[in-house]
Amino acid sequence: MSADPASPERILAPAVARASAVLDLLARSGRPATLAELARALQLPKSSLHGLCATLEQLNLITRLDGGQMTLGPHVMMWANAFMARLDITQEFFASWDDMRVLPEETITLSVRDGAEVVYIACRNGQHPLGLRFHAGMRLPAVYTATGLAMLSTLPDASVRKLLDGLPGGWPVPLTDHGLRDTAAVIDELRRIRQRRYSTDREWVREGMYCYGAPVFDSHHPEAVAGVAVSIRSLEANPALEERAGQAIRKLADRLSERLGAWRRP
Amino acid sequence: MSADPASPERILAPAVARASAVLDLLARSGRPATLAELARALQLPKSSLHGLCATLEQLNLITRLDGGQMTLGPHVMMWANAFMARLDITQEFFASWDDMRVLPEETITLSVRDGAEVVYIACRNGQHPLGLRFHAGMRLPAVYTATGLAMLSTLPDASVRKLLDGLPGGWPVPLTDHGLRDTAAVIDELRRIRQRRYSTDREWVREGMYCYGAPVFDSHHPEAVAGVAVSIRSLEANPALEERAGQAIRKLADRLSERLGAWRRP
Repeated sequence: MSADPASPERILAPAVARASAVLDLLARSGRPATLAELARALQLPKSSLHGLCATLEQLNLITRLDGGQMTLGPHVMMWANAFMARLDITQEFFASWDDMRVLPEETITLSVRDGAEVVYIACRNGQHPLGLRFHAGMRLPAVYTATGLAMLSTLPDASVRKLLDGLPGGWPVPLTDHGLRDTAAVIDELRRIRQRRYSTDREWVREGMYCYGAPVFDSHHPEAVAGVAVSIRSLEANPALEERAGQAIRKLADRLSERLGAWRRP
Repeated sequence: MSADPASPERILAPAVARASAVLDLLARSGRPATLAELARALQLPKSSLHGLCATLEQLNLITRLDGGQMTLGPHVMMWANAFMARLDITQEFFASWDDMRVLPEETITLSVRDGAEVVYIACRNGQHPLGLRFHAGMRLPAVYTATGLAMLSTLPDASVRKLLDGLPGGWPVPLTDHGLRDTAAVIDELRRIRQRRYSTDREWVREGMYCYGAPVFDSHHPEAVAGVAVSIRSLEANPALEERAGQAIRKLADRLSERLGAWRRP
């Protein structure tokens, strides 16, 4: 989520927030943009964007094409690689799941939280069509996803309230007819998740799909650094299978947390 | 490469350059840092870093631990995923190489250029030990690597001169006793690469290792967006094998460029 000019929190480095907004826009649009297009979309004068983009280009954060259009530059990879190195569990994620031999043909996903959204980092789509193919880079509102709720359940309630009540765009647009519809419902659900030790998404992302998630910890952060989930067809769900899926994803999350040194936490 | 305060090019948005330097430092150190540590390393007053870091935290570009230490935040993944989506050839990279059945057991790498360095994006280490294991996220000076030289060969000479003559830290520290030692030698080598249509690294990265590289293009950029290389043990090299490796990597680069729509370039 980008900082919004209307956000209640004061932005102490506005140029940095604008630079981030430029990169967000280029990331979202997925195609090169001109200075004029950026100025229009961000409602900023071209004159102020000019210096900002020149600096972003010097930093290799944007690349300029011959026609002057801009795309994201390679320097973003330096940060992403460092971020991912801390979370170097992608291989282990797939291998551990296979090793556990529980629901081996189902869809599994690994995501991180970016504000009130989750970003999928690694996904393996299963044999059974879910009406949705997960892919790395995909973003969804955290409150509708099993991984997102699992991660939110590791935050203090006050932080969750601050996060969800302060969303610049208001409550996330529902993806189906189901799902949590306000902060109070989320707080209630998080309490259940902490008791049960896994989260559920019951057709909150997609009709016909149930997901079960759990949080992954590392050695540094008291809050989850990632979430994992397994997705099944709601048609097949029954209490025994749901409990099996929940326990399995919990076990996977614990293995990955161990790999990241969570138990060595000072 | 970060913008350096001593760089001859004027920085029009200094707060953005400082923010980028903070993220670079966190990426390089690979462990959480305090405000005091950042201030010391970047030679900036704590007071000016305070507002910068608060904004970076609001933007989810840094995450603050309980003790106040900072690590890279998940929002960097949004940009990286968008950058990589444009370059969504990792799977094809491995599959195409296997499909070609030339030197199937050798090490292959895919990298992008970030200023005067290359960043490895995808690597498969071969059966034969090279004294070096490539891994995603690894960075090397472009002038010593086959992928880097292949990408540089797609720039005009003037751009290469500007890039290499303006390096804040001076000429990249040699990795072995071999390799190009000044801009003029690079310009000469790039001419040979354009004629031969593949680049070579002859023990410039590691004693005992030769690499052969070629540039990958997309539909938007006149310059290469990535480079691919195959690495072999120098002991085994002979003119026939070298030509075979060069032609194979060239063919792989052409396939990936086709996949990225390079031939549809307007």
